[in-house]
Amino acid sequence: MSDFNEQRGRAADYFRDLQGRVVAVLEEFDGGGKFREDTWERPGGGGGRSRVLAEGKTFEKAGVNFSEVHGQMAEDFAKQVPGEGRDFTATGVSLVLHPRNPLVPTVHANFRYLTKGDKSWFGGGADLTPYYANREDVIHFHKVWQLVCTRHPAPVDYARFKKWCDDYFYLPHRGEPRGVGGIFFDYLEGDFDQLFAFVRDAGDSFVEAYVPIARRRKDMAYTEQQRAFQECRRGRYVEFNLIYDRGTIFGLKTGGRTESILMSLPPRVRWEYDYRPEPGSPEAELIETYLKPQDWAEME
Amino acid sequence: MSDFNEQRGRAADYFRDLQGRVVAVLEEFDGGGKFREDTWERPGGGGGRSRVLAEGKTFEKAGVNFSEVHGQMAEDFAKQVPGEGRDFTATGVSLVLHPRNPLVPTVHANFRYLTKGDKSWFGGGADLTPYYANREDVIHFHKVWQLVCTRHPAPVDYARFKKWCDDYFYLPHRGEPRGVGGIFFDYLEGDFDQLFAFVRDAGDSFVEAYVPIARRRKDMAYTEQQRAFQECRRGRYVEFNLIYDRGTIFGLKTGGRTESILMSLPPRVRWEYDYRPEPGSPEAELIETYLKPQDWAEME
Repeated sequence: MSDFNEQRGRAADYFRDLQGRVVAVLEEFDGGGKFREDTWERPGGGGGRSRVLAEGKTFEKAGVNFSEVHGQMAEDFAKQVPGEGRDFTATGVSLVLHPRNPLVPTVHANFRYLTKGDKSWFGGGADLTPYYANREDVIHFHKVWQLVCTRHPAPVDYARFKKWCDDYFYLPHRGEPRGVGGIFFDYLEGDFDQLFAFVRDAGDSFVEAYVPIARRRKDMAYTEQQRAFQECRRGRYVEFNLIYDRGTIFGLKTGGRTESILMSLPPRVRWEYDYRPEPGSPEAELIETYLKPQDWAEME
Repeated sequence: MSDFNEQRGRAADYFRDLQGRVVAVLEEFDGGGKFREDTWERPGGGGGRSRVLAEGKTFEKAGVNFSEVHGQMAEDFAKQVPGEGRDFTATGVSLVLHPRNPLVPTVHANFRYLTKGDKSWFGGGADLTPYYANREDVIHFHKVWQLVCTRHPAPVDYARFKKWCDDYFYLPHRGEPRGVGGIFFDYLEGDFDQLFAFVRDAGDSFVEAYVPIARRRKDMAYTEQQRAFQECRRGRYVEFNLIYDRGTIFGLKTGGRTESILMSLPPRVRWEYDYRPEPGSPEAELIETYLKPQDWAEME
């Protein structure tokens, strides 16, 4: 258990530092907005630092959260999580970027270290949600994560993490994935140093995975109609996060700070009854071509 | 069980008829929009008829659904519902009205009859969600439901149903009720004819409970800023429906039609990070004065 404390300290230091570095890059990249900072304490133990940029030039809303919390899980919830008892600790960084321009994809990433009873593990991942998808963007995103994974031994495995991501970010009630995937992993147990090296490599690769995509699209002109489509698709993002996302549910059920947890929700959203894109339109192409799991990293 | 069939038939006939009557009143009241009609079949058994008005003059989105479904509940879900086994039937009418004008409250009502194994029961209710609340509106809404309840014997009980509504339409992660309440009831078992008379009385009273409120507010001028506040508050409506609402979860988990279930979601919504109304503003008044359970029906 004293190992857990030392390990958690190292993980938390890394996540805190990663938050600072990512925020610095994104603020510069945004070209107008500034991140505000809110530190908060969790009544049951621990706290966090939320950094949110609202109404920026590139990002309509960008949130990068760090947290380090500990306490007791509610009885019901504790049963669903590995490890004995109800005592837990969790530290991690979580980010969601909602660009203003519908030609730029939304992105989410999260890296975390948890302990509960006799267990400790890493979890995390990164996934891309385009509105007007481009093949080269999707391939680039997946290739970055594939390359990160190939640099680390088992249990790290790009094919497994890619499929896990496709399976996880899926809306059963829509019969549709949230986006074009990426990687997702959870309950990674084993040699701490080895797993921590992988998680650091993944965290350090986030900027490379996303920023080149955003850079080549962010100044492109877009129409009102494209904006409306983005707002409708953002509705699916909300549906996923509130109905299915374990991180959101974990946060809300363990007494996390609501505003920090729900900073993941898009700034402007619409729900149009029974919206269907015109056959053959770019909007239909997103759904028919891109929202289908594929081996993007193997394509050129 | 043959009683259940006959009773379900009568309940379904009433709900179908109520849908038609409410739609006729609302279409005339809207003064511009038309309800479209979609009939749908549920793969596991039964189906429904959705009537939705989008981009009307008064209503930005108004949905009035009728459904009559039957089949088998998923194992996990069946355990959470009274009655033996997994076979169920459900029929009901459900409506959500999202006015365009932020000075007009959103309203929800639902009346339903369910059977599962050896059990059959009525459930339902109606609740009001104002953005800029008026005392007289809230009192009127509650008085209508109180009067309906006083016309029927136990187990019908306004005080109990009012409290049930306050308890049910509550967002723990916000520490806030969804709106100013109304009535809510579930698992009402007993004499079918007696309970059915109450449910019919409640269904028939919906127009009287809501339309006078909407009528006196719908043509009032409003500002961009009031509209923005409405869109932020609508975010809470989405949070409630997707995280907590049993009807939504029931529908999605029993293979209902997604578009009909999610017609309850507001058309335009925003999430602003850590939004706080100015102290002393009408926006603060909503939260401080109206989003607190009170004995509205006893006030003048």
